[in-house]
Amino acid sequence: MTPFRHAIVAVTFLLPASAQRIVSPVISSDHRVTFNLSAPSASQVMLSGEFMKGSQPLVKNGEGLWTTTIGPIEPEIYYYNFTIDGVRTIDPGNPNVKTGSTPGTIQSVLEIPGDHSAFYDPQPVPHGEIRTHWYASKSLHTTRRLTVYTPPGYEGSTNTRYPVLYLFHGANADETAWTRLGRVNLILDNLLAAGKSKPFLVAMPFGYGVPPGSPSSAPGANLTAFSRDLLEDVIPFVESHYRAYADRGHRAIAGLSMGGGESLGIGLNHLELFSYVGGFSPGIRTADFQQSYGKFMADPRTANEKLRLLWIGCGSDDSLFAASEALVKMLDDAGIKHVFHKSGGAHTWINWRRYLNEFAPLLF
Amino acid sequence: MTPFRHAIVAVTFLLPASAQRIVSPVISSDHRVTFNLSAPSASQVMLSGEFMKGSQPLVKNGEGLWTTTIGPIEPEIYYYNFTIDGVRTIDPGNPNVKTGSTPGTIQSVLEIPGDHSAFYDPQPVPHGEIRTHWYASKSLHTTRRLTVYTPPGYEGSTNTRYPVLYLFHGANADETAWTRLGRVNLILDNLLAAGKSKPFLVAMPFGYGVPPGSPSSAPGANLTAFSRDLLEDVIPFVESHYRAYADRGHRAIAGLSMGGGESLGIGLNHLELFSYVGGFSPGIRTADFQQSYGKFMADPRTANEKLRLLWIGCGSDDSLFAASEALVKMLDDAGIKHVFHKSGGAHTWINWRRYLNEFAPLLF
Repeated sequence: MTPFRHAIVAVTFLLPASAQRIVSPVISSDHRVTFNLSAPSASQVMLSGEFMKGSQPLVKNGEGLWTTTIGPIEPEIYYYNFTIDGVRTIDPGNPNVKTGSTPGTIQSVLEIPGDHSAFYDPQPVPHGEIRTHWYASKSLHTTRRLTVYTPPGYEGSTNTRYPVLYLFHGANADETAWTRLGRVNLILDNLLAAGKSKPFLVAMPFGYGVPPGSPSSAPGANLTAFSRDLLEDVIPFVESHYRAYADRGHRAIAGLSMGGGESLGIGLNHLELFSYVGGFSPGIRTADFQQSYGKFMADPRTANEKLRLLWIGCGSDDSLFAASEALVKMLDDAGIKHVFHKSGGAHTWINWRRYLNEFAPLLF
Repeated sequence: MTPFRHAIVAVTFLLPASAQRIVSPVISSDHRVTFNLSAPSASQVMLSGEFMKGSQPLVKNGEGLWTTTIGPIEPEIYYYNFTIDGVRTIDPGNPNVKTGSTPGTIQSVLEIPGDHSAFYDPQPVPHGEIRTHWYASKSLHTTRRLTVYTPPGYEGSTNTRYPVLYLFHGANADETAWTRLGRVNLILDNLLAAGKSKPFLVAMPFGYGVPPGSPSSAPGANLTAFSRDLLEDVIPFVESHYRAYADRGHRAIAGLSMGGGESLGIGLNHLELFSYVGGFSPGIRTADFQQSYGKFMADPRTANEKLRLLWIGCGSDDSLFAASEALVKMLDDAGIKHVFHKSGGAHTWINWRRYLNEFAPLLF
């Protein structure tokens, strides 16, 4: 082939020059991290992130470059923000951004690589696929998106059927969160290649039945609407569109935060549909327990007969930890079998990726 | 089903309070748009975007709320930025963000809905799917991502084969750009439902053979490396993994900006592989024409025999417009058939979505 000149030169001038010069963050080999920002006119620049407590100032040098170095930091994927003259925003030097479905979710991403591949890294193993569907939700009268993970080998086979995990995101996120931020596909690819889990499909719907940020004046409205979409639209779509088993023994339901409230609320009240239920840092309130789980708790024999796994994980620094502990005590008191995975850490994707990595091998 | 209380209340406190209060932008029914930012400590806040020339200041009121109203604005999807005390960043009140693969690509998104559905809107028609693959690139010795659109009906049929459009993103973007920003799936779903285009697959690889932002000291390195990945890895992957036709009559190649330089550079020099070639605001330089297209231009008879379509689109406000005009003149002089779609507008996704909508009905 003729060696062509490439076109990057011709088009990079379309970016503002300032955006090209500053690189941030810079990760050194000892896992220290330097953050940089060009802001000659700013009066104060603060850094806050999941790798630190509180916030700390960047320091300005003569040319208006603000900088600070922190660490060393343990290899992980972290989110952080700059606050520039009181406005919480992203690091303009970093193209890697976490987004969500409501304001305040926008953060910059810092990924510290370790000496070895992490469980969430792409590794040289067979890879599954992620599919994005637009489906007509009859129950919500709208077109909605659904993300589905298919394990490696799904496409090549024509007769094999697969179990399904229905997996929900948290508040202020959307149906892309578990793949973009949770790396569900890479985690499951790696577990499967290591022989640690079985192959299954993962269906990740948009977890809102009412618009994100709707007033809380309609309690229950979101879960009621979302439940209808899940039970009447999403599950039938998955089971007609994919080679999925369609019985309770091959259905699992789990979610994080708000999605954990949804998975527990729907799963524990539909043992005729699900036999594996997980709540990751679940968004639950003790005041709602009787209404949400009263019927389930009242019949521990059926619960223990039907449920092959009830798994709850929460971090000790999570403001929702007490609610998980209270639910677990209620399960203990009722004699309902469960796993309570108490971890360190807070209400973060760091924990949710790890919980998935613990939970998935227990399924099917 | 028991009416459960939903969990949004329990988790929204995890967001900073300030982020919840300010809504921006606010679109009025007459298509005027108000931008808002809470920034009591800032000295200057500027707005710039694709819907305006230059930039204009937001005005601060007594409570530290900065605001400005512009428009009315024509229904479209626009990108914009706030510049806060000299730092170009996003609108923190808007969760809808455009991201890319290099700094400076991060912008807020303003979508003005029209009175009727746009050609890029989700409409109540059959919808195709988007699939994300991780594939082993033998030529680049790495695991890379590939996005593929399958038209509605692909999944249900078992014998039908489909043509393939290989479609490339621009500089500083990635393999998700055409679906996230270009809405390729919705545009093709709508064209197909209207009977205006044929069903075909769209394969959208990551368009960099060298890391984005690499020094321009290695001219040709990117296109050479990307070409190998495309020809030796991507096309074989698509043709073995999908029910795709594998002959030149059923392959099209197109791209925008840097990707337009790639599609013209590869397509016009591989008429044995492609019969439809498109360049959208292509990132090309007249100084490279002889080296890039000399062999192709020297044999107009073969070009006209083999090419069923050579389509070039560019906007008159685009700084790359002169290069497209020069290429078209060269084609005219050589007597090579082509379509030159001269539009208004600049180097924007507004044009690229429209170009795809013009180009797709001409394929296959």
